[in-house]
Amino acid sequence: MSSGRAGATAEDARVARTRTDVARASLDVLTNDGFDELTHARVARIAGYSKTTLYTHWPSRVDLLTMALSALGELPHHSPTGDLRADLIAELHAFRVAINDLGLDRVLMVLAQWGATVDEIGRIRTDLVTDGEHIARRLLSQLAEGIRLEAAVSMLSGVVVCPTLMYGSPPDDATVEHAIDILLAGLRAS
Amino acid sequence: MSSGRAGATAEDARVARTRTDVARASLDVLTNDGFDELTHARVARIAGYSKTTLYTHWPSRVDLLTMALSALGELPHHSPTGDLRADLIAELHAFRVAINDLGLDRVLMVLAQWGATVDEIGRIRTDLVTDGEHIARRLLSQLAEGIRLEAAVSMLSGVVVCPTLMYGSPPDDATVEHAIDILLAGLRAS
Repeated sequence: MSSGRAGATAEDARVARTRTDVARASLDVLTNDGFDELTHARVARIAGYSKTTLYTHWPSRVDLLTMALSALGELPHHSPTGDLRADLIAELHAFRVAINDLGLDRVLMVLAQWGATVDEIGRIRTDLVTDGEHIARRLLSQLAEGIRLEAAVSMLSGVVVCPTLMYGSPPDDATVEHAIDILLAGLRAS
Repeated sequence: MSSGRAGATAEDARVARTRTDVARASLDVLTNDGFDELTHARVARIAGYSKTTLYTHWPSRVDLLTMALSALGELPHHSPTGDLRADLIAELHAFRVAINDLGLDRVLMVLAQWGATVDEIGRIRTDLVTDGEHIARRLLSQLAEGIRLEAAVSMLSGVVVCPTLMYGSPPDDATVEHAIDILLAGLRAS
């Protein structure tokens, strides 16, 4: 019995390792080469497993996409301290880290491109965006609600998203701080 | 001589029509299927010309991308009237029209994905973004300059870009108006 448990544990560890390797390889392919290249053959080669193994556990390309997002793990977030301005700056820095270190901008673009046509990818996108925005939305809800809150969240995200999408790099610290000062002054005055 | 000119004119018209057809087909493929699908074979089939014709005039895939952007034509813009709030609202509506009618969001995502690695695409992106932002930047320069202006432009673009990228549809009129009221109040107060 004890040796049976040990066997099961070894098997579990092997499966877990396969899962981790495939998830990591899927994310690498997705952020470096895009969804078009996220195929079983490509991921199998990079992860070092057979195509048969991949097809057995993750039959569809959407399964590989889900695996890639699992490799993203928890998005980095700031833990609010109560200083609204400092908390917003720190949260945008966390967003910038997710772009620079995890390729979050690439992931969002892939999800945007495919979310419109594949329901399951649309749901994956909604989950990721909800996680990504939840600290910023909670912080800004101190000053706004309803449509004003949604407008403020879009503007705050835009501080990081727009330079990344349009100029190829996230904003520097000074731009982030100026943006937050404008946004907070606007929410307090309007 | 006169018949020679007529012959040249007919030839010019034929070339111009080919160019228009190929540009239109390239943009369709780009916005519907992405840059990976923007191949000579695919565009030739959709435009109704031979691959040889395409390779002769537009040898590289970057040439096809340039053609696709020429089919975008002039981006829609609002002509400012002097009422800053109304002008900003109208300019964001023009941005929304460019997304809904021309697929500008897809084009920006393709350029973001490839601009980082291909210099020529990076330059194409810079030209498009400069055109896209120039009215908004001019309007906001009444209230800000330098880094503050860049921060304000990013927030303004974010009002349209972020919901499109993250939720799959541009913002409604009410969200646009609330955002502009927050931004203007913030620029005047901070």
